Amino acid sequence: MADQYAQSRENNRPTEIPAIRWDEPPEGPVLVLLDQTRLPAEEVELVCTDAPALVEAIRTLAVRGAPLLGIAGAYGVALAAARGFDVDEAAASLASARPTAVNLSYGARRAQAAHLAVLRGGGDQKQAADAALAAARALHEEDAQASARMATHGLALLDELLPGGNHRILTHCNTGALVSGGEGTAFAVALAAHRAGRLRRLWVDETRPLLQGARLTAYEAARSGMAYTLLTDNAAGSLFSAGEVDAVLIGADRIAADGSVANKVGSYPLAVLARYHHVPFIVVAPVTTVDPDTPNGAAIEVEQRAGHEVTEITAPQVPVAGAEAGGGIPVAPLGTQAYNPAFDVTPPELVTAIVTEEGAVSPVTAEALEELCDRSRQVTI
Amino acid sequence: MADQYAQSRENNRPTEIPAIRWDEPPEGPVLVLLDQTRLPAEEVELVCTDAPALVEAIRTLAVRGAPLLGIAGAYGVALAAARGFDVDEAAASLASARPTAVNLSYGARRAQAAHLAVLRGGGDQKQAADAALAAARALHEEDAQASARMATHGLALLDELLPGGNHRILTHCNTGALVSGGEGTAFAVALAAHRAGRLRRLWVDETRPLLQGARLTAYEAARSGMAYTLLTDNAAGSLFSAGEVDAVLIGADRIAADGSVANKVGSYPLAVLARYHHVPFIVVAPVTTVDPDTPNGAAIEVEQRAGHEVTEITAPQVPVAGAEAGGGIPVAPLGTQAYNPAFDVTPPELVTAIVTEEGAVSPVTAEALEELCDRSRQVTI
Repeated sequence: MADQYAQSRENNRPTEIPAIRWDEPPEGPVLVLLDQTRLPAEEVELVCTDAPALVEAIRTLAVRGAPLLGIAGAYGVALAAARGFDVDEAAASLASARPTAVNLSYGARRAQAAHLAVLRGGGDQKQAADAALAAARALHEEDAQASARMATHGLALLDELLPGGNHRILTHCNTGALVSGGEGTAFAVALAAHRAGRLRRLWVDETRPLLQGARLTAYEAARSGMAYTLLTDNAAGSLFSAGEVDAVLIGADRIAADGSVANKVGSYPLAVLARYHHVPFIVVAPVTTVDPDTPNGAAIEVEQRAGHEVTEITAPQVPVAGAEAGGGIPVAPLGTQAYNPAFDVTPPELVTAIVTEEGAVSPVTAEALEELCDRSRQVTI
Repeated sequence: MADQYAQSRENNRPTEIPAIRWDEPPEGPVLVLLDQTRLPAEEVELVCTDAPALVEAIRTLAVRGAPLLGIAGAYGVALAAARGFDVDEAAASLASARPTAVNLSYGARRAQAAHLAVLRGGGDQKQAADAALAAARALHEEDAQASARMATHGLALLDELLPGGNHRILTHCNTGALVSGGEGTAFAVALAAHRAGRLRRLWVDETRPLLQGARLTAYEAARSGMAYTLLTDNAAGSLFSAGEVDAVLIGADRIAADGSVANKVGSYPLAVLARYHHVPFIVVAPVTTVDPDTPNGAAIEVEQRAGHEVTEITAPQVPVAGAEAGGGIPVAPLGTQAYNPAFDVTPPELVTAIVTEEGAVSPVTAEALEELCDRSRQVTI
């Protein structure tokens, strides 16, 4: 059933291509994604006409990033409802497409709940589908607003921790407009610093194995006119050693109740380096990333991805004819086994602050985090 | 003048292909290298007929690794002498082909000194060239013996630090037979543990940007029948966190008089992680790697390499037609600037032990290191 197709943008002005958008062409509603696996070489949109197609796009990382996955999950449920597919089945498959990102299941469940509420209230399928779409649109809009508020709170924290501006910020993976309904999480803070004239340099970790830093963060930094420099994840240690990093800013895929942060693999080594060098390590994520049902870091399920992401190299331009299992070019000997966790977990004692749209928590404790989440729920009500 | 050409091996039994060998075909003496840039996809030898060709091979990393660079430097001077080129010019260009590896200039100077001593003693050019070659061969043989002794000392240290065997060792970059006249440095210790039935697993860091771990260490581990697993450099943090690393073993490109260790970029972050997790961090290198003229880490010149190693991906199999500056496939936006130090420096307080052919130094202090070097000189005399 899964149906995806690619479409090129006629008007090739990339800052206007949203990471995700709902469209209603005559053939029926679709969810249109900017295919992130093909950036920065090509700006191609991927059109999903049903939830299985979206699940596939999520698994292949055509769409990725914690907040955006939440929005995608909600739209995916709305798509199933609008197209007359089984909404509960769609919600379940979307929620479990990637195990670590809590936002994904949050978004899917939220649209599912809106759909169910209408049916239970006596509404018809059309009204229920409209409610699911309205829930997805609301989440999308809320995320854009949350992004702006995180940027404000994050910049205020930076200015407090590092008076004098001229910040040299190290970031990992990709946390900008490509992962968000707005301008992102950690990247949005760096962008706010840039606009305020207080960003001296953004150090961009390439982020192996999938190079989200090199491909996506560098792309967003270049388009924003920021002073940025790319480095291998390995080289971050040399920057810390030379005193060239004033703060580390990263996103999060799940934050446990105790403040443990699951984020892209490579975040934890940065946290250890930051601690060793007395550099602030700041996590920026919406409140929906906090999962009160996950008590601590040990309870976070970390997605293990296929070994070919490590044993082969891929790029959008590499011809795949005759390619191996992963469609890439083998760099390691054939038969090499790889350890490829997608995320790692940073314990709260290594996190200087967690910045959300409701404000910052520092020091990071279970109590402070709970209080913040309660405040968020009150605002929503 | 630089003349290199490639030759395929007829008898394709790779464990018998030495990383470097002197040959004397009818056309005149040549230095034959196993081209490490083409491993593991192809086993191709690169034939150098003069020192500029060898300098080029060193710069492109066809030949690499601290001890092997020393041997290559010595043979390169012998080649210049045997072919009637200017020996001092050859020695100077070889010694400076890569700035961080002290062994390279040591090897070049040693062959140069042997050449000069014969001339000063009234010998002719042929005798002087023979003396340079003899010096290179002696260094080659000494390195093989040193490698065996490092393996013995290193395994003894491992057994002392980690009684009970069953070692899970993490290594970075490549330090095996491909960098040595023998079986290498850190890798030789892991190999000794494997042969003694005391290696549970070798964790192989892929080692960005040039993937020496994925391409070369995995190749050597596979051929040795070791249980090994490849990982992105990023994922090492997760292994430490899970208690899956018993010791880190790495090589060195230069050790300052105070015990600061310059090694492949990414070594320092591992040292910080190892300290944070109370895991031994062990450096294995021949005594010639210790440079008494470099007082401390700050005095070590770290080679900065071209940004395209980071902004483009390359593999031996990637067609280069229409390729960009570095001959690879761009992964970052065009114009992206990269920070690409080849090495980093680990301070002595993070190094549990330095293992040499003369024994191990632990704790690492300037005094202990000096005493070891003195002992080495006495043995040589």
